[in-house]
Amino acid sequence: MWTGECDMERKDLQAVVLLSGGLDSSTTLAIAKSEGFSCHALSFRYGQRNRIELESARRIARALGAAEHVIFDIDLSLFGGSALTGDGDIPRDRTEQDITDGSIPASYVPARNTVFLSIGLAWAESLGACHIFIGVNALDYSGYPDCREEFIRSFEHTANLGTRSGTQGSPYSIHAPLVHLTKSDIIRKGSKLGVDYSMTVSCYDPDEQGRACARCDACLLRKKGFREAGIADPTRYV
Amino acid sequence: MWTGECDMERKDLQAVVLLSGGLDSSTTLAIAKSEGFSCHALSFRYGQRNRIELESARRIARALGAAEHVIFDIDLSLFGGSALTGDGDIPRDRTEQDITDGSIPASYVPARNTVFLSIGLAWAESLGACHIFIGVNALDYSGYPDCREEFIRSFEHTANLGTRSGTQGSPYSIHAPLVHLTKSDIIRKGSKLGVDYSMTVSCYDPDEQGRACARCDACLLRKKGFREAGIADPTRYV
Repeated sequence: MWTGECDMERKDLQAVVLLSGGLDSSTTLAIAKSEGFSCHALSFRYGQRNRIELESARRIARALGAAEHVIFDIDLSLFGGSALTGDGDIPRDRTEQDITDGSIPASYVPARNTVFLSIGLAWAESLGACHIFIGVNALDYSGYPDCREEFIRSFEHTANLGTRSGTQGSPYSIHAPLVHLTKSDIIRKGSKLGVDYSMTVSCYDPDEQGRACARCDACLLRKKGFREAGIADPTRYV
Repeated sequence: MWTGECDMERKDLQAVVLLSGGLDSSTTLAIAKSEGFSCHALSFRYGQRNRIELESARRIARALGAAEHVIFDIDLSLFGGSALTGDGDIPRDRTEQDITDGSIPASYVPARNTVFLSIGLAWAESLGACHIFIGVNALDYSGYPDCREEFIRSFEHTANLGTRSGTQGSPYSIHAPLVHLTKSDIIRKGSKLGVDYSMTVSCYDPDEQGRACARCDACLLRKKGFREAGIADPTRYV
């Protein structure tokens, strides 16, 4: 797993970049692009409440120069088990301490990153791409187990055992360039790379005009990030 | 990873069982059931040429007493890269030596079992089930890398790092009870458990009446299995 920058040898190579339309994945796309990858952006219509993020993803993929953008349908809401797909209430107004106390909140979607990475892997293998980027972050995050480095490294190992390419000398690399950054580091990095954060949507449940609720964990972490980075927060809150 | 039989303590527990409608996965469902699991059977409409296998899966799930059966839509043919989803010709009339020489044929579907297991994992976590059964087999098989024990064990490890349940004291077990059996062993085992193999479809490309081609790798391995088991092959071939 790479968490740093790529060397020049990897220029002009292809990468699949998971893109939710949020702050982290948009920054990740900008990083992949800045390292010279031709980026195949992949978003999921997985039954999430927040469908506006898919429109954001589309605009961001275009703005950041992705080679192509696919929205893949996979209805995880069929299984339930998450506030993000309609089961129960989204936690709001939690303190920073509560958010980062290591517990897993109701917004956790069962096995989401395992599913998303596996579909990214299927696309990468079909494309002949050996690089997959994912914007997971294990510092200013909600405690999801599938956002940790240990998980990403294990997925990479599994991918290289379970694919033609991985077992025949062209191993996959899963890049998680944000995993050890704070939210403010991420915002500073993305701002330098020209990410327009007004296009990104972090909120778990924005209103119909796309305005963020300002109270869910994602909004609270985002607000904190801009504050600590000393950069004006361009988010439209209700 | 379990490859043997379960002990009595696990009776009455729930399991997700991947069920393609073929010989191996049907036998796996019968084994899970015989070990006392309440079985949630999971099939995929993934863009395969052979849609008849889904009808078979439905009948088999009912015949073998699955608690429920879900057919999940995930269009991997969007990415291409496999003869099974319409890219190129299905290999036919290969010798046994060619089939089992360790190379990966055109019928390989990129990352298929990684994708299927990850969706099975998402369902298992939502159900509160900690057991997933998959009918992979690494002896009489077509050389797919995602049918080997090493891959399954690595996926299990990844699953236990990337989920709430896996990180909070209720780890997942991926059961691959067929992985070290020959096709004839599998057929003998399933026959004892009452699997009606006339209901199962192995062929990669059956005709409209559901008759098997008798020439693809899956048909050749199946025919060999019945021959070596000394059991009459109930398959309808063209």
